[in-house]
Formats: sequence, C-alpha cells, structure tokens
Amino acid sequence: MLYGYQGSMKTRPGHRDEVATILTSGADGLKAAGCHLYVVGLDATDDVTIWVTEAWDSKEAHDASLLLPETRAFIARAMPLLTGEFTSRETRIAGGLGV
Amino acid sequence: MLYGYQGSMKTRPGHRDEVATILTSGADGLKAAGCHLYVVGLDATDDVTIWVTEAWDSKEAHDASLLLPETRAFIARAMPLLTGEFTSRETRIAGGLGV
Repeated sequence: MLYGYQGSMKTRPGHRDEVATILTSGADGLKAAGCHLYVVGLDATDDVTIWVTEAWDSKEAHDASLLLPETRAFIARAMPLLTGEFTSRETRIAGGLGV
Repeated sequence: MLYGYQGSMKTRPGHRDEVATILTSGADGLKAAGCHLYVVGLDATDDVTIWVTEAWDSKEAHDASLLLPETRAFIARAMPLLTGEFTSRETRIAGGLGV
C-alpha cells in the first residue's frame, strides 16, 4: 500500500494564495522522488488554512523528499508566510480513483 | 477550482478492510459523475478510522452523486459496518500533482 500523509498549515492573513502557489508549483518535481499524489486544498471556512493530501511509495520516500534541495527551497519560501500551526496524520492508501 | 471534500468515518472493530473494499470498488464509477479523485486512506494510528479525500467538478456534482443508485447501494452496504461517527471538511483544490 502507498504511504499517505495529510497535513494542514495556517498562513499569515492575506498570504494563503501565495503559499498555495509555492506548494503547487513544486508538486510536479515530487514525482521523481516517489510521490503519486500531492493535493493542495484551501479550507472553505476560512482564508488561512491549507490542507495537503499526499500519497508516496513509502514513508521513507516522503521523509527523504523533505531533505531535497528543491524541497528545502520551497519550504524556505513558504515558512515566513506561515504561522507555525501545523497538523499531520499518516495513513495507508487502500486505493480509490486517481491513486 | 475543483471542489474538495475530506471525510472520515469509523468502522465497527474488525470491519475496516471490508469497508475500504466497498469504498474502493465503487470509486471508478464516480468518474462519470464528475469525480477526479477519491482516495481511501486507513488511519495509521488505529484499526477503525478511514479518511477519504475527494476532488469533484463542483459541490453540486458531489452532492448529486450521493443520490445515484450505485452510490446508495454502496452506502447501504457500508452503513451497518460503521459506528456513525463522521467528520467532513470542504476545500477548494488549488492544484498539485495528480489532480
């Protein structure tokens, strides 16, 4: 089964679209690192929360991706726009449509 | 932007794999109803929680899908295996990989 990761982050007011653009612009590059799915969702009930749903070959592939220079550059760009409030959850992907 | 829906459900002990099979077996059929993504994830920290992440053409397409005979049949099969504890969240999909 693929490794699943669901995370949330809160952006500083007025910066959510900018963070979403940073996250989505780097998503295609994750494919080579073992990523099958990287979905960036904007919470419908506020203007600051982003929900990311990911599917990876393995937890190891996900964790290793965080150390890639490209990923670190994206994180460095996004971090100043975030409040520091994060949540995360791990799953095993049973299947479905599009994964 | 696509409409995003994230939901969770809890199954009765020992029935999570069965519910996951019901959910994933119906996923391909959702494509014609405007579904782009339907990911069934098994919570890594327990044996009863399922997290579903969905992307649809619109909220209307999602809501209408719940009334389809096929969907109602899947719900009827799964319901007796669930505890009745659900969560849900709506998003707008900004993009990413695989969506």
